[in-house]
Amino acid sequence: MNLILLERAEPDRSGLVTLVDGRARHLVNVLRVAPGQRVRVGVVDGPLGTATIASVDGAAVTLRCTFAAEVPERPPVSLLLALPRPKVMRRLWAQLASLGVAQIILTNAERVEREYFDTHILMPAVYRPLLIEGLQQAQDTRLPLVSIHRRFRVLVEDDLDALAGDALRLVADPGSDTSLLAAGEGAAAGPILLAVGPEGGWNRFELGLFEAHGFGAVSMGSRTLRTDTACVALLSLLHAARAHRLV
Amino acid sequence: MNLILLERAEPDRSGLVTLVDGRARHLVNVLRVAPGQRVRVGVVDGPLGTATIASVDGAAVTLRCTFAAEVPERPPVSLLLALPRPKVMRRLWAQLASLGVAQIILTNAERVEREYFDTHILMPAVYRPLLIEGLQQAQDTRLPLVSIHRRFRVLVEDDLDALAGDALRLVADPGSDTSLLAAGEGAAAGPILLAVGPEGGWNRFELGLFEAHGFGAVSMGSRTLRTDTACVALLSLLHAARAHRLV
Repeated sequence: MNLILLERAEPDRSGLVTLVDGRARHLVNVLRVAPGQRVRVGVVDGPLGTATIASVDGAAVTLRCTFAAEVPERPPVSLLLALPRPKVMRRLWAQLASLGVAQIILTNAERVEREYFDTHILMPAVYRPLLIEGLQQAQDTRLPLVSIHRRFRVLVEDDLDALAGDALRLVADPGSDTSLLAAGEGAAAGPILLAVGPEGGWNRFELGLFEAHGFGAVSMGSRTLRTDTACVALLSLLHAARAHRLV
Repeated sequence: MNLILLERAEPDRSGLVTLVDGRARHLVNVLRVAPGQRVRVGVVDGPLGTATIASVDGAAVTLRCTFAAEVPERPPVSLLLALPRPKVMRRLWAQLASLGVAQIILTNAERVEREYFDTHILMPAVYRPLLIEGLQQAQDTRLPLVSIHRRFRVLVEDDLDALAGDALRLVADPGSDTSLLAAGEGAAAGPILLAVGPEGGWNRFELGLFEAHGFGAVSMGSRTLRTDTACVALLSLLHAARAHRLV
């Protein structure tokens, strides 16, 4: 936890907040804070800041917070992901938030098992704390927007323009000859939407629908990666390429 | 499992092999093979090839294999990693093998807990099957070489030249201004050795020792990532940059 994230309503008008949950335990047991010490804080979808420990009283820690004037920008990359199996999705939430994504758009595909959509791992009460964990790791405050689309075709044909209208659209496809770094060269430095398929890949119809809706196919090379490894690899590649002005 | 990996001694001189373990179960239960069908095979540290299913007899599957003349090259990247906690290391083995690393050099550091070295996750009997799993995922045959070094200073001062003499040496350091993509521009297309630190980072002495031994510091940006996320991100970035002739 490299940052203590607060909910918007937690600090009072003078910036005081008393924590008694896992964040307090982390401050007491891991960071071993004492009054007067300073720690990094942030507000979910709000600014970063600094807090001074006002008091430590058993399991309760009171912080006095000062926040920056500006809110960090949303990351430029959004992820459209064919829902992986629950065990993999559980591992992904924090990793995706730590890498930085504006939106996580989960969808069905032929090679996605229907019952994956009925798992508790898609409940906000379960995934939100995992996203927060990733943000605290990466010292970011911008919570990814999550949407779940059981009908692939409706998502691509009807919903995508509203979700990610002007983004550069890329679909990861091991069969493509275009490297991800090459794909975006010369493109404007706007938002990017990256689609990552299920284990076994998108089928022909799905790839065709993506193509018909402006997605360019990109590859990461000849190695087939597990969904979670592929997501981390592709997102970090996009971020680095953007920073390096390659995409 | 996108490839069935065989041990060198398993196929007989005519290329016949009978499997009865997890690989047979995968062929029968997941791929649902029938006699005459073809599957991709490979030999650990040997060639890739194709096998025809000769027979399926309950839980035993017999394959007739034909192998390519050439053995795939080792990946150009090696990883020097401060040993993460066992749970993270367990997750990493297969991911590292799937991304492709020539060597996995595990070492101590100030911020590594001593007891991490006493875990069963560092026993070849435990990690070798996980590496094989990663190779089967990525359709590669080259098993990463693993070495474990409890003394950081001895590793860097005495052992590293023999392990990775002529490699381009990079150390991931969030404090660096140099991006990983920029670091290697103009460098020869030889092997690369990447050092990744513990949660909390390398200390000053460790970074100094790396610098004194030819390591250039590189950063991935301002976000602090968990060790496993950072390894996947950095390795995929190096592979892509190499393919794109940036490193």
